[in-house]
Amino acid sequence: KINGDRLWDSLMEMAKIGPGVAGGNNRQTLTDEDGEGRALFQQWCEDAGCTMGLDQLGNMFATRPGTDPDALPVYVGSHLDTQPTGGKYDGVLGVLGGLEIIRSMNDLGIKTKHPIVVTNWTNEEGTRFAPAMLASGVFSGVHAQDWAEDKTDAEGKRFGDELDRIGWRGEEEVGARKMHAFFELHIEQGPILEAEEKEIGVVTHGQGLSWTQVTVTGKDSHTGSTPMPMRKNAGLGMARILDLVDEIAWSHAPHAVGAAGHIDVYPNSRNVIPGKVVFTVDFRSPDLSVIEDMERRLREGGQAIADDMGLGIEFEKVGGFDPVEFDEGCVTAVRSAAERLGYTHRDIISGAGHDACWINRVAPTAMAMCPCVDGLSHNEAEEISQEWAEKGANVLFHAVVETAGV
Amino acid sequence: KINGDRLWDSLMEMAKIGPGVAGGNNRQTLTDEDGEGRALFQQWCEDAGCTMGLDQLGNMFATRPGTDPDALPVYVGSHLDTQPTGGKYDGVLGVLGGLEIIRSMNDLGIKTKHPIVVTNWTNEEGTRFAPAMLASGVFSGVHAQDWAEDKTDAEGKRFGDELDRIGWRGEEEVGARKMHAFFELHIEQGPILEAEEKEIGVVTHGQGLSWTQVTVTGKDSHTGSTPMPMRKNAGLGMARILDLVDEIAWSHAPHAVGAAGHIDVYPNSRNVIPGKVVFTVDFRSPDLSVIEDMERRLREGGQAIADDMGLGIEFEKVGGFDPVEFDEGCVTAVRSAAERLGYTHRDIISGAGHDACWINRVAPTAMAMCPCVDGLSHNEAEEISQEWAEKGANVLFHAVVETAGV
Ligand SMILES: NC(=O)NCCC(=O)O
Ligand SMILES: NC(=O)NCCC(=O)O
Repeated sequence: KINGDRLWDSLMEMAKIGPGVAGGNNRQTLTDEDGEGRALFQQWCEDAGCTMGLDQLGNMFATRPGTDPDALPVYVGSHLDTQPTGGKYDGVLGVLGGLEIIRSMNDLGIKTKHPIVVTNWTNEEGTRFAPAMLASGVFSGVHAQDWAEDKTDAEGKRFGDELDRIGWRGEEEVGARKMHAFFELHIEQGPILEAEEKEIGVVTHGQGLSWTQVTVTGKDSHTGSTPMPMRKNAGLGMARILDLVDEIAWSHAPHAVGAAGHIDVYPNSRNVIPGKVVFTVDFRSPDLSVIEDMERRLREGGQAIADDMGLGIEFEKVGGFDPVEFDEGCVTAVRSAAERLGYTHRDIISGAGHDACWINRVAPTAMAMCPCVDGLSHNEAEEISQEWAEKGANVLFHAVVETAGV
Repeated sequence: KINGDRLWDSLMEMAKIGPGVAGGNNRQTLTDEDGEGRALFQQWCEDAGCTMGLDQLGNMFATRPGTDPDALPVYVGSHLDTQPTGGKYDGVLGVLGGLEIIRSMNDLGIKTKHPIVVTNWTNEEGTRFAPAMLASGVFSGVHAQDWAEDKTDAEGKRFGDELDRIGWRGEEEVGARKMHAFFELHIEQGPILEAEEKEIGVVTHGQGLSWTQVTVTGKDSHTGSTPMPMRKNAGLGMARILDLVDEIAWSHAPHAVGAAGHIDVYPNSRNVIPGKVVFTVDFRSPDLSVIEDMERRLREGGQAIADDMGLGIEFEKVGGFDPVEFDEGCVTAVRSAAERLGYTHRDIISGAGHDACWINRVAPTAMAMCPCVDGLSHNEAEEISQEWAEKGANVLFHAVVETAGV
């Protein structure tokens, strides 16, 4: 078993970097705080005897050698970046849980046939630069590296420039590494495990995602002197489309969800009817046909709302991935580990996207989840117990050691 | 008659300061650009033989002496600040039209009994610091000066500090001046005059305004892994309230308007269900009881929507003024001037708020309006013809000279 106190201490130590305003974290990707978190992680990995690799998108790879020089490494890991008002565990548990299994192998004198590599994937959250899971997406050959580097944040800063600025661009070609397998430990970010009192979620599938950026165009005009019939109110158009998004998602519930988290109103002045609103609709489902149906209804229904109100509308797909089915062998390794350890568990579909969803395309992959309080994530109040973290890391430990061979 | 070319040249010269991105202006109150505009205006006034007074809120008063040392001045003016994406004439026409009538009096050797004072009121637009017509409101005794100085912009900067920063705080007590009368020339900002081919609007009334800032509170959570029934989506709450605002306004149309121009979503991340939305509802009507009814229905209906969705909601009135009836004598002076000049005209109710609405409480006041293309304002594309500007300034000229006596 791993050392739960040490894992917890490391989680708390990392959480000191980029503190939030309400007990969580604001360590967004490619900020100075992200750089600080990376440096601490590298230090810890080197202290544990690993050597750090760094690729051209800042993906970090800490290697613990194996005994067979020809064996491909078993990878574990997740991400250290957070939401602007994020929690202390989302992503971080997967990275530091990976580090903890290496520390525990050192303690226990375990040597594996396959090397073990702990990764920190750049820009998983996708808040500062859309889409989410950007660098693991390039690693898996889904996105082009140039395309990723050209992504800009709200202030117009380029991903590639910000990576250079914080000094975490490496020389290694992105995606050059071959993997024997990939395992990601993550908090559930949903309410199922806690409600059913299960200690471990064995992730068999991940639901697919579609991000559509909608731009509604009206006409800036005076809120006082523009008669009601002459208004082209892009804000009201946005409002009606948000209601439609909710209706569409509910029509497929419980097999789909939908909402808009990002909404920018222009010129955003109290006495100007909004001439433009840009917002991103997030639809998810484990069923690709449902995602396609929701996208179609958004475009058709949004167009109808806009036409009806004399507004312009444009749709742009800014992110997405198809539903994922994880590797049977890796899933079995996770499930057997939970069994062996005597933990309560159930198979589960991941509601969120994860780097594992992309890596699954280039290597046998699976995920283990632990519960989180009230299913709450992407909130500074995100919480887990030390026991949950420990049990999750133990499952990771056993699955990895079994897969890497002793 | 005034010199239309000179007036137009001055309008175009002022529009070079704080240019917008689409042919209009971004010369928001208490920015460096506001300071530049003020300096140019002061220079022009001094060139025209006026002395500049400046009060503790940066209101500017350029005086042309009268022949009777005991006579109170006749004031004219408006504001030089603009919306973030504003036009070249909103406010500016009233200030530079005032300057033009002084220049024309100089040309024509006209001496008036009462002095003439051209004013530039600070922060009429209310975009950067709510409410609108802030400094004329203090001048009229409606707001306390401290209260006004403590208003903050979106970055948390205080009005009083920004006034000091740009160096336009004077020593004169705010509201110390007594006025014989006040006249404001302004573009209509609505479609009526152009549609009816009237050259002049004789403003008899101004509609009242109510700004209610609404804060909807939900719970930040993951857009992917939070099941639909567990969501507390403040963005969706905002959307439903915007629809209600539209419905309420239409129920009183054509005697009311309503919309929200300002909407801020938190944390504004694509994969976070909004935990908080702050937006400002702008309701207007010439009838106070209609405004009160709309406010009440917003609060009751908004509360019901929030309750239904498990959201928190708070309402704060951040601006407002009652409907205004302008001074009969001053209104008659405007109407007679239009008659005498042979211009087509009609009585009109101002749809927008103006400094004149506040000054009307402390001095006999009226307004003259000229048409604007498509009734469009608070838009960089705001446009008027030189002829319209010239005729408006001629009416102001005649009304002022008549009131000031020769
Ligand atoms: N796990 C997680 O929160 N990932 C961010 C990408 C997503 O929105 O699902
Ligand atoms: N005239 C004008 O646009 N004033 C701003 C205050 C208002 O919103 O009516």
